[in-house]
Amino acid sequence: MEYKSDIEIAREAKKRPIQEIGAKLGIGTDDLLPYGHDKAKVSQSFINSVQGNKDGKLILVTAINPTPAGEGKTTTTVGLGDGLNAIGKKAAICIREASLGPCFGMKGGAAGGGYAQVVPMEEMNLHFTGDFHAITSAHNLLSAMIDNHIYWGNELEIDIRRVVWRRVMDMNDRALRQITASLGGVANGFPREAGFDITVASEVMAILCLARDLKDLQNRLGDIIVAYRRDRTPVYARDIKADGAMTVLLKDAMQPNLVQTLENNPAFVHGGPFANIAHGCNSVTATTTALKLADYVVTEAGFGADLGAEKFMNIKCRKAGIAPSVVVVVATVRAMKMNGGVAKADLGTENVDAVNAGCPNLGRHIENVKSFGVPVVVAINHFVSDTDAEVEAVKAYVQSQGSEAILCKHWAHGSEGTKDLATRVAEIADKGEAQFAPIYGDELSLFEKIDTIAKRIYRADEVIADKKIRDQLKQWEEQGYGNLPVCMAKTQYSFTTDPSVRGAPTGHSVPIREVRLSAGAGFVVAICGEIMTMPGLPRVPSAEAIMLNDDGQIEGLF
Amino acid sequence: MEYKSDIEIAREAKKRPIQEIGAKLGIGTDDLLPYGHDKAKVSQSFINSVQGNKDGKLILVTAINPTPAGEGKTTTTVGLGDGLNAIGKKAAICIREASLGPCFGMKGGAAGGGYAQVVPMEEMNLHFTGDFHAITSAHNLLSAMIDNHIYWGNELEIDIRRVVWRRVMDMNDRALRQITASLGGVANGFPREAGFDITVASEVMAILCLARDLKDLQNRLGDIIVAYRRDRTPVYARDIKADGAMTVLLKDAMQPNLVQTLENNPAFVHGGPFANIAHGCNSVTATTTALKLADYVVTEAGFGADLGAEKFMNIKCRKAGIAPSVVVVVATVRAMKMNGGVAKADLGTENVDAVNAGCPNLGRHIENVKSFGVPVVVAINHFVSDTDAEVEAVKAYVQSQGSEAILCKHWAHGSEGTKDLATRVAEIADKGEAQFAPIYGDELSLFEKIDTIAKRIYRADEVIADKKIRDQLKQWEEQGYGNLPVCMAKTQYSFTTDPSVRGAPTGHSVPIREVRLSAGAGFVVAICGEIMTMPGLPRVPSAEAIMLNDDGQIEGLF
Repeated sequence: MEYKSDIEIAREAKKRPIQEIGAKLGIGTDDLLPYGHDKAKVSQSFINSVQGNKDGKLILVTAINPTPAGEGKTTTTVGLGDGLNAIGKKAAICIREASLGPCFGMKGGAAGGGYAQVVPMEEMNLHFTGDFHAITSAHNLLSAMIDNHIYWGNELEIDIRRVVWRRVMDMNDRALRQITASLGGVANGFPREAGFDITVASEVMAILCLARDLKDLQNRLGDIIVAYRRDRTPVYARDIKADGAMTVLLKDAMQPNLVQTLENNPAFVHGGPFANIAHGCNSVTATTTALKLADYVVTEAGFGADLGAEKFMNIKCRKAGIAPSVVVVVATVRAMKMNGGVAKADLGTENVDAVNAGCPNLGRHIENVKSFGVPVVVAINHFVSDTDAEVEAVKAYVQSQGSEAILCKHWAHGSEGTKDLATRVAEIADKGEAQFAPIYGDELSLFEKIDTIAKRIYRADEVIADKKIRDQLKQWEEQGYGNLPVCMAKTQYSFTTDPSVRGAPTGHSVPIREVRLSAGAGFVVAICGEIMTMPGLPRVPSAEAIMLNDDGQIEGLF
Repeated sequence: MEYKSDIEIAREAKKRPIQEIGAKLGIGTDDLLPYGHDKAKVSQSFINSVQGNKDGKLILVTAINPTPAGEGKTTTTVGLGDGLNAIGKKAAICIREASLGPCFGMKGGAAGGGYAQVVPMEEMNLHFTGDFHAITSAHNLLSAMIDNHIYWGNELEIDIRRVVWRRVMDMNDRALRQITASLGGVANGFPREAGFDITVASEVMAILCLARDLKDLQNRLGDIIVAYRRDRTPVYARDIKADGAMTVLLKDAMQPNLVQTLENNPAFVHGGPFANIAHGCNSVTATTTALKLADYVVTEAGFGADLGAEKFMNIKCRKAGIAPSVVVVVATVRAMKMNGGVAKADLGTENVDAVNAGCPNLGRHIENVKSFGVPVVVAINHFVSDTDAEVEAVKAYVQSQGSEAILCKHWAHGSEGTKDLATRVAEIADKGEAQFAPIYGDELSLFEKIDTIAKRIYRADEVIADKKIRDQLKQWEEQGYGNLPVCMAKTQYSFTTDPSVRGAPTGHSVPIREVRLSAGAGFVVAICGEIMTMPGLPRVPSAEAIMLNDDGQIEGLF
């Protein structure tokens, strides 16, 4: 049997005008700001006008630790959204925007796959509605204003060795990771070390995704710590007087983007913070707006449940005052087999023993998610090579853990393949059994929060952090930042800090290498291991093969 | 009498949906790609479909050398377009897009003024339809791919001291003018000197504005020289295999943007290359498309006629195969007085002698423009402080030069103030008397081209260039670039290379400090004096006062 590629399927999509999609959620034409015929932003005034509506039910889609076999988390999010609509529910999905830079490095989009995709796929992987460009501009305006302040006399007494605000670009460009800026003489300023991160790693991105409205946005932007003085006191973006202009640059970007699935159901695609040094979910504005407009909102969090779901619940839900009614953990037979020790080349061969051996990784995630007080359903994202015996092994394992697993075939069949999952998820959500609570309170010390996550989620025995790091955390507590949640920056491939350790390990240590304060976003980042904030391009970047064909279609992007 | 500010007038605009504006030019709703309700791109397929249409008449608006008094060239362009529509002609205007960076430095938009403005003004001064962001991305993708090529083995044998392709950002950021990149060890590449220009100075901007279609765009992008080898042979963007992906990034940006004047007439706003190191006019695509759709197209060129009109005619018209039917030279009484030696503070006092003393600058421009074989009309852009005697002095002077000057009051009265000008301009255009020709042929040597401009337009006695520069020009001729036009980078404030010399000087020398080959854009840049390709912010940047007010309106941007 021949399968069509994602892009072939996407190009055959029978897209409806975005006004029709908006109408499904009660958004009038005037309140949709179109970007072409198939994308639109939802106006701020409309969002304000629906604040009195009752909230729909929130459904979080998360996954096991990612493996090279692929899990299909976004695909399942889209498939479940279509499935809910197919069984007669008013449902919307909320996912993240794609970063431009990585598209030119490795192949691969971020809009689902098979018959569970969001369109227009090409544009979502390119400039889309310009949100990331706006974030880049706002970030770099602040950077320019900092150096400009120093240039004209440095009234704020910034220690130029302690400027912590870097620059950003939505590009994989390793040459910019570490630079010396302001060279070339008096007219160009005071030479100092500097560097660029990729735009999705910008604190402005995290802020945009956590801000409730434009006022909150401006406040948070003002709270950004950009540098320290010789006496170690912080200098804020507000001191540089950049917060107003940054807000102006982000005004349009704050409005959520509406697109559609292949089945013409509404999809909000908005924001895309890194899932390591930031919280890795789509924007609060998009999620809360969707909840006012739909009865069911399906959203996803980055990486596996140990990172993405943990942050979704401990950071985003806590800050936004929202809570999931049910959590879907996505697993695949192939990923279970990899966790059970099978090499990627051998994944096509039936191996029930390996499936069984790999299941504890899934079990650990189920247990962790339940510890937040929310019901869990496992979605087995079906691959054509999966055998019935393997699928049954996963189902049996999940049942033994007190949950249930449902086979989904949305990749091949769209909503037809997720009706069972949708039916069950809606049932659970409607029962209202969730009693969501973050796993740590605001009042714990910053170190205790890290310790709680490491022990309760990662199942480590201990957190290792030297005196310098503990002192830094204490200093921030004294400065009034002790009530912030923590954002763990850890490898996504393992519960431990060693990416090669699969399964459900225990007894390990979590070393904290560095801590950073994102005062505007409102969290403390705890970095365990190497975190890359500016990727590089591979030897043969996919950009070399990206081009327009004779029909004006884009080739090589996917 | 109280006058409203530009922004107050713009906010009171009775904008029509952009589909109505498109309909005036016969553009259907499906062929307009909306960006919100008041901006749209014209689809490439529509542009292709109208290539058989007869061309309308092209009207170029240029000006005397700019003075701190202001001339109002864009304002007059908009006013004349509205005036033509008001007298029953089917007219469109074509102007440039604004650069984001400078908006945060000095106050001032680029969308006209008074009752002769293009709207939406705020968005045109911010992200607009994202064209400049797309140019930034395409430019920097090439930069990243160059360093990535070197990193992975440098198969093309690029001399890392001779990488001539810099990076760009749409920001005034002097700290990035000169940097050392790729610091931090093996994983970050080979340290080398690098730097950033502002986006409008990018060769990609010039290419986008000169390319006829997407194929031509990709060819020109491929022709960009990015570096040289140790043996001085050039390395092209095509060798780096970046041209295809850059074209994909620019696909949407190539489509002209349609907005409207305060009087709801169509305005194409597209592209914005620097008027010094590039040619400084809006895109060829926008101009040629407008000519297919309207009977009269009013466009403008950057700076004074010595720079902007010269390049418009010698570069843009030559390359695009278009020709102006009539040229409008904008002058003001105030600017004549400044040219006549009056200080800015004293401009409010009547001074007919100073007007007379300043007029030769205007006369020189009239004579120069006529030397291209096109009829000239002078538009006196009226200021409320101008006296009748002063206005009459300008009129009399212009008449003595064999041309006519028409008083225009569009700033205060919109199209009512330009009906006389519009009537006369249409008459001249309809007569078809223009016999346009560039003032030098392709076959002249590069140095002879520079010499021709310096002597015939600037009225210099000689061009000074040392052997190194002459040898470089000869080398490019041997490499096949001898047929290119030259793009002069000179101060806009004077016919000479000394910005303080006003009036109509003769007998000076034009020293060529540097020459650059823009092989993709298709011209050789001759730099006379200091040219800043990355501006800085002033001591108190306007960004400090830019913010959203309580009504969500932008304050401080204008």
